[in-house]
Amino acid sequence: MSVATQEIAPRSGAAFRLDAGQTLTVIDPEGRQVADLLAYSAADIREVISSGRTLDYAETIRLTTGHLLYSNRSRPMLEIVADDVGCHDFLLTPCSYDTFHHFYPELPPHRGCFGNLAAALAPFGVTEDMIPVAFNCFMNVPVDGATGRLEVLPPTSTAGDAIVLRARMDLVIGLTACSAPASNGGSFKPIHYRIE
Amino acid sequence: MSVATQEIAPRSGAAFRLDAGQTLTVIDPEGRQVADLLAYSAADIREVISSGRTLDYAETIRLTTGHLLYSNRSRPMLEIVADDVGCHDFLLTPCSYDTFHHFYPELPPHRGCFGNLAAALAPFGVTEDMIPVAFNCFMNVPVDGATGRLEVLPPTSTAGDAIVLRARMDLVIGLTACSAPASNGGSFKPIHYRIE
Repeated sequence: MSVATQEIAPRSGAAFRLDAGQTLTVIDPEGRQVADLLAYSAADIREVISSGRTLDYAETIRLTTGHLLYSNRSRPMLEIVADDVGCHDFLLTPCSYDTFHHFYPELPPHRGCFGNLAAALAPFGVTEDMIPVAFNCFMNVPVDGATGRLEVLPPTSTAGDAIVLRARMDLVIGLTACSAPASNGGSFKPIHYRIE
Repeated sequence: MSVATQEIAPRSGAAFRLDAGQTLTVIDPEGRQVADLLAYSAADIREVISSGRTLDYAETIRLTTGHLLYSNRSRPMLEIVADDVGCHDFLLTPCSYDTFHHFYPELPPHRGCFGNLAAALAPFGVTEDMIPVAFNCFMNVPVDGATGRLEVLPPTSTAGDAIVLRARMDLVIGLTACSAPASNGGSFKPIHYRIE
């Protein structure tokens, strides 16, 4: 791990500034792990990443190199400039106490990516109700076109795979190492990231 | 049109209270028209309908009778109790000035469902930045499971088709007669609704 690479411990989260023009590299160091990513305009945190605007403009649910991630104000926040995996999710909200209760009633409760993001973003003024659908790096959520059915499967990422996003405006980023068993094949692993 | 049935004129919107236990019937009077629906908790408008929570719990993007529409706090807001169509969208944000500019640069600009919802919901304290992905009644957005590609096609609804939703909490509802050519086959039509 180089000097500049940061680690997010298993089942935790981080928040940091990413200025316009900087790139964020999100790395899955061991493979088959998910990182939920949120972005807010540093100038006004009410401007936030929007799945609905992004999917509408991209005309696909499979976002990869060349696609822009838009805000709720229809402005580009991030551009995907490199992608080893090509399989990410932008349909689902971060896992939380409530989703754990729903999907894993037999497991000890955990605040999940939602709680980790809320805690990490609180110093920037972001509250729980301001957390929308996240861009879930490496998350593998196939949709059956005929029935609409969706599944949460283990990621297809292998050790060292990365996605690189370039900021189009000054941003506050929230990022996690996912806490939900289904999204990473039942194991909890770290996520690495690098700002350049 | 019965006494209790309200009309939303073409390319406009409305907002109103829907109390717990009441049902909202959204009717497509002429067929092939879309109605964008938003829901906020009347007790605290920071609690809002969430596509990401709903799709996660339903495990499908095709919501119909029996499905619950959840808030960002993981609480049921609405239950679909009847549905003539079975084809609605919960991926895309309401059309807006910006989406018109993107998809229809040759047409006169229009504030779209986004602007109509913002104007109708303003008296309830809802601002533009508080508008998330809407539940788009009758909107036909097939997703290709293999490629992820999505399309906006004319609705499959025919004249008089309806969807009925029962409130699980006291709500403020925003509802439109959609303004975007692609979502309704290029014609602008009214939407009817009834509260019971």
